[in-house]
Amino acid sequence: MFVLGIDPGLSRCGYACVEGTRAGPRCTALGVLRTDPGEQLPLRLAELQAELRVLLREARADVVAIERVFFQVNVRTAMAVGQASGLAMVEAVSAGAEVVQYSPNEVKLAVAGDGSADKQAVQVMVQRLLGLAKPPKPADAADAAALALCHLAHAPMRRRVAVASGSR
Amino acid sequence: MFVLGIDPGLSRCGYACVEGTRAGPRCTALGVLRTDPGEQLPLRLAELQAELRVLLREARADVVAIERVFFQVNVRTAMAVGQASGLAMVEAVSAGAEVVQYSPNEVKLAVAGDGSADKQAVQVMVQRLLGLAKPPKPADAADAAALALCHLAHAPMRRRVAVASGSR
Repeated sequence: MFVLGIDPGLSRCGYACVEGTRAGPRCTALGVLRTDPGEQLPLRLAELQAELRVLLREARADVVAIERVFFQVNVRTAMAVGQASGLAMVEAVSAGAEVVQYSPNEVKLAVAGDGSADKQAVQVMVQRLLGLAKPPKPADAADAAALALCHLAHAPMRRRVAVASGSR
Repeated sequence: MFVLGIDPGLSRCGYACVEGTRAGPRCTALGVLRTDPGEQLPLRLAELQAELRVLLREARADVVAIERVFFQVNVRTAMAVGQASGLAMVEAVSAGAEVVQYSPNEVKLAVAGDGSADKQAVQVMVQRLLGLAKPPKPADAADAAALALCHLAHAPMRRRVAVASGSR
């Protein structure tokens, strides 16, 4: 199973594709999509949409795991995150992927064993779990990888629940 | 010039297509797109995207006027509005329309002469300006019509500014 984690944002949209294998999780792509802050908002969104489409096609993800966004930050940032997350979700649906959402706390709990872990702790655990030579940077890419790892951790239980409830 | 006003939302997305003619503004379409609140978020967004595409194709809008959203409301609503507005903007760009944004205050000032006009005052002025038999309902559709009217009011000055600055 290939899981594409997406940490939505307009200036920086983190992504990480992680394959769940019997030998453990394997990272096949990791990085950040950027749009030009000097460009007009509608054109930035269109640019992000085009890049997400390429990413989804190349990643061939079965599942796209997106951060469930809560607003603690300023209004302008919050708006951009909402717009980017909406785009990521519709493009994932268009690409035929299942879309799942996890809160920041669920992600931290899954990868660092602590729902209030800081960014550095998440980066270190992502590095260990994926067997990377160094912690993934920037933080947005590490967060996206943590989202994918979170889903891989939850997937077996989700499958059992789906079977038990007769939906699959 | 055809202007499509969009008041973004996930449960109710207001729209109104208004043509600017020498005889005054003329409403060619007005209503609300709805998605099922019982459905999962990614599928609701995909449904809204599909409906926006049909609307944009049928409206043949030269310009799409979208509300510039500020957050005063609750987190969940704000998130949905952000996601819907992002979708509306990228679909408008895809359809080849110019995208413009106006704040609620700019809209109220343009159609009711008062930046703090209430919903009822906006509905009454939209009815008068468009020569409708009764005030447009629901409020989301009236707000969308007010956005389109706001752009028609601003368009002559925008054109003069563009010419004066040599960009057209």
